[in-house]
Amino acid sequence: MPVPGPGYSITVRLEAPPSASAAGDLTTAVGRAGGVITAFDVVESHNDRVIVDLTCNALSANHAKDITDTLGLLPGVAVRKVSDRTFLVHLGGKIEVSSKVALRNRDDLSRAYTPGVARICQAIAENPDDARRLTIKRNTVAVVTDGSAVLGLGNLGPAAALPVMEGKAALFKKFAGVDAWPVCLDTQDTEEIIRAVELIAPVYGGINLEDIAAPRCFEIEARLREKLDIPVFHDDQHGTAIVVVGALRNALRVVGKKLSDCKVVVCGVGAAGSAIIRLLLKQEPGDVVAVDVDGIVHRDRPGLDDNLRSIAAATNKANVSGRLHDALVGADVFIGVSAPNLFGAEQVATMNHDAIVFALANPDPEIDPMEAQKHAAVVATGRSDFPNQINNVLAFPGVFRGLLDANAHRITDSMLLAAANAIADVVDGDRLNASFVVPSVFDNSVAPAVAEAVRKAAAGESREGGRA
Amino acid sequence: MPVPGPGYSITVRLEAPPSASAAGDLTTAVGRAGGVITAFDVVESHNDRVIVDLTCNALSANHAKDITDTLGLLPGVAVRKVSDRTFLVHLGGKIEVSSKVALRNRDDLSRAYTPGVARICQAIAENPDDARRLTIKRNTVAVVTDGSAVLGLGNLGPAAALPVMEGKAALFKKFAGVDAWPVCLDTQDTEEIIRAVELIAPVYGGINLEDIAAPRCFEIEARLREKLDIPVFHDDQHGTAIVVVGALRNALRVVGKKLSDCKVVVCGVGAAGSAIIRLLLKQEPGDVVAVDVDGIVHRDRPGLDDNLRSIAAATNKANVSGRLHDALVGADVFIGVSAPNLFGAEQVATMNHDAIVFALANPDPEIDPMEAQKHAAVVATGRSDFPNQINNVLAFPGVFRGLLDANAHRITDSMLLAAANAIADVVDGDRLNASFVVPSVFDNSVAPAVAEAVRKAAAGESREGGRA
Repeated sequence: MPVPGPGYSITVRLEAPPSASAAGDLTTAVGRAGGVITAFDVVESHNDRVIVDLTCNALSANHAKDITDTLGLLPGVAVRKVSDRTFLVHLGGKIEVSSKVALRNRDDLSRAYTPGVARICQAIAENPDDARRLTIKRNTVAVVTDGSAVLGLGNLGPAAALPVMEGKAALFKKFAGVDAWPVCLDTQDTEEIIRAVELIAPVYGGINLEDIAAPRCFEIEARLREKLDIPVFHDDQHGTAIVVVGALRNALRVVGKKLSDCKVVVCGVGAAGSAIIRLLLKQEPGDVVAVDVDGIVHRDRPGLDDNLRSIAAATNKANVSGRLHDALVGADVFIGVSAPNLFGAEQVATMNHDAIVFALANPDPEIDPMEAQKHAAVVATGRSDFPNQINNVLAFPGVFRGLLDANAHRITDSMLLAAANAIADVVDGDRLNASFVVPSVFDNSVAPAVAEAVRKAAAGESREGGRA
Repeated sequence: MPVPGPGYSITVRLEAPPSASAAGDLTTAVGRAGGVITAFDVVESHNDRVIVDLTCNALSANHAKDITDTLGLLPGVAVRKVSDRTFLVHLGGKIEVSSKVALRNRDDLSRAYTPGVARICQAIAENPDDARRLTIKRNTVAVVTDGSAVLGLGNLGPAAALPVMEGKAALFKKFAGVDAWPVCLDTQDTEEIIRAVELIAPVYGGINLEDIAAPRCFEIEARLREKLDIPVFHDDQHGTAIVVVGALRNALRVVGKKLSDCKVVVCGVGAAGSAIIRLLLKQEPGDVVAVDVDGIVHRDRPGLDDNLRSIAAATNKANVSGRLHDALVGADVFIGVSAPNLFGAEQVATMNHDAIVFALANPDPEIDPMEAQKHAAVVATGRSDFPNQINNVLAFPGVFRGLLDANAHRITDSMLLAAANAIADVVDGDRLNASFVVPSVFDNSVAPAVAEAVRKAAAGESREGGRA
């Protein structure tokens, strides 16, 4: 059952009687209406009345309105204003562009701008590699979307996707010091997206694709990787895959199984599911069985697209068919990136002993984690109100920090695996248990560890490349 | 004659004898070599030697080397390291992306990112105008180039143009609080540039085109103005035109002439010259005569392109032909945005009494300003070491501040004229004289004055629009 969280937090300004019981009446009313009070501030106090700012978490817009209405019905209480704290945070946007150089006087201007800047331009024209030394390229990533798959909300378009891209940019800076900039493209045509990213690329040291719908995202990523000399990373695919694979490594440690002995069911074969499967396959699992809305993916299933066909070829060794519930029988691991409420505790009971369940559909998982826990040894979700939150924030800042520091021109599966292992290794043996297979998103040691792993993997590859 | 400026400033680290005369020997040597010392710092002092950082301005790379070599030849002196201060300023780029919101804990994350951000996305999807309230769009401008006309350096390409665009972004923030972001496009195809800008537009509240070669820039601007619902401004055209027209207004005040009585010669009919002519024509001048490398532009001149044909139709009332020197005879005003050293004092002498000469070619003007002063009443250049510097920095920050604050969907000639008049009016009657027809680029009152003028003009037009 969902609980009221800070994602839906309102501040209600109220006029109330100055009686001793008024505060109690207000908080009781909020509690009865199902809200969770997080702050109670008296703004003004008079002989005949007090003005109070009451801040509480709610479940939804309707719930917030219920709470406000309940307060307004109390004797002597008048609601003056309701502010939505989430909207307040977003007013005017969440990021800004700052100057790193002083521009106090003529001398500063002559160096940072004309005439001095002309020499910098000429230096780069003569030696294009200098762009990474003398411009923002060395620390800057484009966060590119077409708005076709915004969070779990679907195709909202580029303007409505911007708040997510801004948030991403803020996280890039906070966790890894990376300068990230939102590129929200007003097209959903594959060729136009590819060309637009190619055209804007000179400013950037890396491209982070975001919230682009499958299967378009696969072609866009593959083609851009061919065309550009900077790394291209689709976070919905690889960010998720990195964190899932890292968490799975630790979950397997907890239950004492080896991936090579395990049957892994992956439910949902869009961007995230496909990337998870591909990264799992790099580690020679016992078997992987992919499942989508049409059931188990197998080689003889009619109507497979390119992506599903390549997955069918590499998974499901026994070429079985059936539904999700069939796939779960005897499975060691379930990884869901699909839809809410697909199965219950009784299906978990059919899995192998010490089952691992990663139910990552957002906001409502494939199975209620409390139900899953009845028979599974390790349970993870995408939710912040449950242990083992699988959150891409653990991956993307450190991955790009490492790529930029390595001056990497491409990203490879071995870098993704290095990042996954680095996340897993942040949880040392003393802390590892069934409720702690991934570090907290606020663990500041994660991004540097991931960055170092990616940097080393990149350095190793450029040495390989040098020898080849 | 050019003087050593801070655009070419070096810091030389030297080991020198600890004698009382050593400092004098060093500074004398720099002075003899033509350098200008700006700082002398003793970094270390020992019994047998001192380590000194000597900072000085030079004219060029060769001149800097001459100075360094001269120092190294002094007895007992060894040059340890030479740093170019302009390059140091550019290391790692000049701008960064910062978060405006706190991301300290789970509650912050829930509001600024998931799950809270989902509601912001939905609000914008339902009401697209909310993007200007809830995202960076309301304060953000794209600085777009194809690198085809970088400063006076020519076609250096998009990567080499980035230092200029970064500098522009830094100036936007410093002078007007505008968040500007460099968009350096890896194409010089008109159609591709137009389409790319259209595709990236959702993030921005305005487009500043920059360093795009003529005549391509005219079509790009015109077509983008048709396609986009945000203002499109080509700084090389309109920024220059605004400052020139503002400065000319004050110069005419100084000499007591009216524009309607004046013959204005504009030399150079690229981006800047064309825009200057068009903005002048809005104010009913006596006459304008345009001149380019092929001489005076007149209606019967063969081989006119679209741009020149429209200028020929609106200027040169007597349809005269000839060269620049012919055009200058009897002219009241010369405005040059062309090439160095095109004429001398003897041609200025052929102009009307109280001639005004704006010789703006960079870095070397159409006429040495000292020569021009012999016969002209007011002289202006683009140089910072001479009075009356015509610098776009006076225009573009305030123009976009005004456009963004007005939530303007387009930019009009009346806004450009309002900006020009606002710049002129910053120089009040008490300060106005032949050496002060434009305010200093560091006058902090300019951008707010320009912004207010543009905002008012925009508000007036949306009222007009409402009545129509």
